[in-house]
Amino acid sequence: MDSILLAHGSGGKLQSDLLEKVILKHIKNPIINLLEDSAYLSVNKSKIAFTTDSYVVNPLFFPGGNIGKLAVCGTVNDLLCIGAKPLYLSLGLIIEEGFDYERFEKIIASIASEAKNAGVKIVCGDTKVVEHGKGDGIYINTAGIGEIKHYFSPQKIETGDFIIVTGNIGDHGIALLSERQKLKFKTPIISDVANLTGISDILFKNSGIHCMRDPTRGGIGGILKEIALKSSIEIEINEKSIPINPGVSSICEILGIDPLYLANEGKFIIFSKEEKIVSTLKHTKLGKNAAVIGRVIKKDQKGKVILLTKVGGKRIIDIPRGELLPRIC
Amino acid sequence: MDSILLAHGSGGKLQSDLLEKVILKHIKNPIINLLEDSAYLSVNKSKIAFTTDSYVVNPLFFPGGNIGKLAVCGTVNDLLCIGAKPLYLSLGLIIEEGFDYERFEKIIASIASEAKNAGVKIVCGDTKVVEHGKGDGIYINTAGIGEIKHYFSPQKIETGDFIIVTGNIGDHGIALLSERQKLKFKTPIISDVANLTGISDILFKNSGIHCMRDPTRGGIGGILKEIALKSSIEIEINEKSIPINPGVSSICEILGIDPLYLANEGKFIIFSKEEKIVSTLKHTKLGKNAAVIGRVIKKDQKGKVILLTKVGGKRIIDIPRGELLPRIC
Repeated sequence: MDSILLAHGSGGKLQSDLLEKVILKHIKNPIINLLEDSAYLSVNKSKIAFTTDSYVVNPLFFPGGNIGKLAVCGTVNDLLCIGAKPLYLSLGLIIEEGFDYERFEKIIASIASEAKNAGVKIVCGDTKVVEHGKGDGIYINTAGIGEIKHYFSPQKIETGDFIIVTGNIGDHGIALLSERQKLKFKTPIISDVANLTGISDILFKNSGIHCMRDPTRGGIGGILKEIALKSSIEIEINEKSIPINPGVSSICEILGIDPLYLANEGKFIIFSKEEKIVSTLKHTKLGKNAAVIGRVIKKDQKGKVILLTKVGGKRIIDIPRGELLPRIC
Repeated sequence: MDSILLAHGSGGKLQSDLLEKVILKHIKNPIINLLEDSAYLSVNKSKIAFTTDSYVVNPLFFPGGNIGKLAVCGTVNDLLCIGAKPLYLSLGLIIEEGFDYERFEKIIASIASEAKNAGVKIVCGDTKVVEHGKGDGIYINTAGIGEIKHYFSPQKIETGDFIIVTGNIGDHGIALLSERQKLKFKTPIISDVANLTGISDILFKNSGIHCMRDPTRGGIGGILKEIALKSSIEIEINEKSIPINPGVSSICEILGIDPLYLANEGKFIIFSKEEKIVSTLKHTKLGKNAAVIGRVIKKDQKGKVILLTKVGGKRIIDIPRGELLPRIC
């Protein structure tokens, strides 16, 4: 391999190769953990969670949000995922020379309002400007610190665990695709981008939850395969139980896209020993379409993910190699 | 103003305007503090420091280092500055499609070795890839967490404080300039990029230190003016006391560059009530050229910075408006 490809950044096979064969070859320590989106740290006896994401979404504004809202929600959700209460964010901006001042201010205003909505404080930041043609409007990095309240981890997953998704899948992917390709639909598809602090109380109070993840790049297919592989479990999911907006479903059929690999930006995949949390989630705005979509079948396996299709067949779900849509987040 | 200019990212007047008129207009809270490079946080009774920087340096490799080494040193030094022991870093990579794999691995190897050298752990990360022509090889963001050991702050500065610089100024700026302009000198100028953990024990043990800062973008001129303005003090510095490599000095004279505004990546500016720390620093590798360069003359002033020139005149030092060299870090 001579150079970096777009697919190295799309959450699939090439990305994990890059991570394992280059980055982790050099950077190794007992804390860095591929199983988690956030790191568990101790600072002077306090347990804190630490995570980071850069956002390079294209277009910067899309139905349902913009890169600023995404940069807050994505990092907040990564902290919630491992059982941490999000507290503080950093904000790193890389702006392309010539970027419109008004659009810049709109993005900053979204960041501020979403941080308020999520109950986090933006406490430090940095601004860099690169020459025109060396960026794409604006790239944003947020790092986040949270206080660990619970310990959710793929390592806690048990045979029989229910696999729950907190709502319709694929909305973010299709919203981006429509905006980018200028596709017009009768009912426009809106990105699901949202911070999930609104359901975190329910999730943190539930003792049955073993593991949570936000299925962003790579979609629920990518994330389930990743968890299955790294936790050595076998998973079965039912296509007919997977909640999906009928509009998203039709577009996927027409364009031949697998919705399992479409990005989500306001959803969790939950592994729980109880399914009753679904009925509680259904009473919330962010979880009203929550559903059990499958079970953990066996442990100590090679990480097979089986999809029982609507027509009664079986399909093996693998890690996506590249991605239909680069720069989804 | 219609659009973002390169100068909005160069650490001068336009940058602080952007920060105050747009970013802080929206994002305000009791923790965010323009006086500091890092935020002071409480998480479950522990006091931690949190900081972030994105690195967009051009060229990626320069005499004395590369963007990877810079990304570790810069963030580590920002934590040391406020009196924190650096512990953990995050690593956010934005790679341009087509970036050479071998150069990528060299950068990652530098990050790993510099983190080891600084005694910090890289504990979480993220990798994004953007299309060719939408980046410039690689941009790196690091955020850092440290444990607060001391409290250094511009607010603690007193009349009579000695102003100390820990070594020669301007090496980083001239190393970058030479590399970019393909200038050849008899003795090549090497960037001073270094993490300053090696002198942190000396600094943390010294009870006389009131404030520390790393004079990166904007140089010692920019940082002194910024501190003077925000702490409402008047400062006098002596040109003849400022340590500078004779090579850097000649290049500055030939090209008409003011070394006070050149970036440094391995130096601190220290405000201390005692000057004896200079002799201790002089016994270290990182501080061997340390010198007292001036004093705090008065408090409750309008932030004047006076340079007593070598020829016996006085010059007023102001915040640089733009910068000679964009993308210095």
